[in-house]
Amino acid sequence: MEKKCIGIDIGGTTVKIGIFEIDGSLLDKWEVPTRKEDGGKYILPDVAASVLAKLQEMGIAKEDVAGAGMGVPGPVMPDGHVEVCVNLGWHDLNPQEELSALLGGIPVRSGNDANVAALGEMWQGGGKGYHDIVMVTLGTGVGGGVIIDEKIIAGRHGLGGEIGHFHVRDEEWEHCNCGGVGCLEQVASATGIAREARRTMAAKDAPSAMRAFGDGITAKDVLDCAKAGDEMANEVMETVGRYLGLAMAQIALTVDPEAFVIGGGVSKAGQFLIDVIEKYYQKYTAISNNKGILTLAKLGNDAGIYGAARLVLD
Amino acid sequence: MEKKCIGIDIGGTTVKIGIFEIDGSLLDKWEVPTRKEDGGKYILPDVAASVLAKLQEMGIAKEDVAGAGMGVPGPVMPDGHVEVCVNLGWHDLNPQEELSALLGGIPVRSGNDANVAALGEMWQGGGKGYHDIVMVTLGTGVGGGVIIDEKIIAGRHGLGGEIGHFHVRDEEWEHCNCGGVGCLEQVASATGIAREARRTMAAKDAPSAMRAFGDGITAKDVLDCAKAGDEMANEVMETVGRYLGLAMAQIALTVDPEAFVIGGGVSKAGQFLIDVIEKYYQKYTAISNNKGILTLAKLGNDAGIYGAARLVLD
Repeated sequence: MEKKCIGIDIGGTTVKIGIFEIDGSLLDKWEVPTRKEDGGKYILPDVAASVLAKLQEMGIAKEDVAGAGMGVPGPVMPDGHVEVCVNLGWHDLNPQEELSALLGGIPVRSGNDANVAALGEMWQGGGKGYHDIVMVTLGTGVGGGVIIDEKIIAGRHGLGGEIGHFHVRDEEWEHCNCGGVGCLEQVASATGIAREARRTMAAKDAPSAMRAFGDGITAKDVLDCAKAGDEMANEVMETVGRYLGLAMAQIALTVDPEAFVIGGGVSKAGQFLIDVIEKYYQKYTAISNNKGILTLAKLGNDAGIYGAARLVLD
Repeated sequence: MEKKCIGIDIGGTTVKIGIFEIDGSLLDKWEVPTRKEDGGKYILPDVAASVLAKLQEMGIAKEDVAGAGMGVPGPVMPDGHVEVCVNLGWHDLNPQEELSALLGGIPVRSGNDANVAALGEMWQGGGKGYHDIVMVTLGTGVGGGVIIDEKIIAGRHGLGGEIGHFHVRDEEWEHCNCGGVGCLEQVASATGIAREARRTMAAKDAPSAMRAFGDGITAKDVLDCAKAGDEMANEVMETVGRYLGLAMAQIALTVDPEAFVIGGGVSKAGQFLIDVIEKYYQKYTAISNNKGILTLAKLGNDAGIYGAARLVLD
């Protein structure tokens, strides 16, 4: 039997789990709830019980499992140690060692969830066929993952790929969650885009289709209006695209990947979003015509389980 | 006999050559002129003749040479191919293959000179003891080199470490050599600092010690005035430090090195320069207290031969 690998993506609400062939085909996937009470001490036993039951159900012996990978929503040290993971209630533990013990010795590897998702997109998603990609996830926040030579660049202090906190806007006055002011995430996340739209509507008298949504406007509303040709919505998206294009240009001039893979809820806007980013990305990389392309992510919420499974294959 | 390695740094005026023990001790170094006539076709034969003569003089057999590394002032493809190297007159050649043949089969590796210098500083210079560093060279231009896990990140299109062309200043009006506008190099190189000082003197009426130098002012003059407490010179250096700190913050949030190693002529200003950059670097990395340090390069013009020799040891 070909070896299988297991991908585990631990989120604040559910844990997503997948079983894969080592060639990347997904055999089965499912979810278990994330029980965060009592310092998150039930999470790993729940995951282990669920994985072992599934292996038995599928008739897969432990010896046929190459290993399990795990994405954790916080910083993970190179040895797997997690000092603190606020979203799960974890403090000072090594979840990869614990999970390996709970799985009866199956080898377990782990990484930060954004980095792991980037690895998944490289393996079987929008970055398939490339070895060097940077993933940019535009969701509630702006996340990033840098993959060079098929390896995650996690950074020596867990700051690798923290591109949502690039300072891009000097005239910003509100603080970002990180303590900084003027971060990319404040403009280009889903919440950032909605905020930018509210600010623009408040600052101007001009009519706009966006006004029908009032203060409850979402990033999707802004993008729908922009696609329909609304001038003010396009102005908002030019601002968003300019800062994203600038950040990607600076990343291109640092690690020069083959592709930027753009994911997260905002990326459902598709080619329209790529085009508005591309204009500024090209402008800010005038030094060369030969550079990484911009493309869309393909795996959606499954990127984490794919990337986690891929961790095992190094 | 312990194996030796050879480091060759090809510049537009001279080629620097060094012979090293594989532990990084420099045994001897010398220079030969760079003969650029006839498409630079004499450069590699000159280097090879000089190296072979030196090996004979030192009584080192070819079998005792682990290899030779070479820094080239332009983009080098992963297989060593150079499409064009304007500074040397080279077009469409593979200098590492040619040099290896000229050296009677000694293995040769090559890389871009800025990246190779970064590797040298990691090996035996300001980054000694670290595995992940980013070198920032403040000279006529602003160069960079990104080293992760002791390997150069050259990039898929040769743009790795091209940090001098980060767009940092929207209100700039002059074009950079690269075709862009508002690049870091336009403010933070030696020529950029002098230009910024001339602009500041022209825009203001206030007295300043810088005025004694007139339009011939150099970056060193600006830094000397700033260290002596001149207000306008300090204003210039705050601008320079802000853009450098911003760029390094964005690099830290991408690859998160252990250290930034600052070199080039401008870095002779020492801790004063580090301090003015550090203030803004800290400001723009508010997300964490735990991040790469800023430190000074140590090898000066020898960084290239050290790094070239280190290329051989991978």
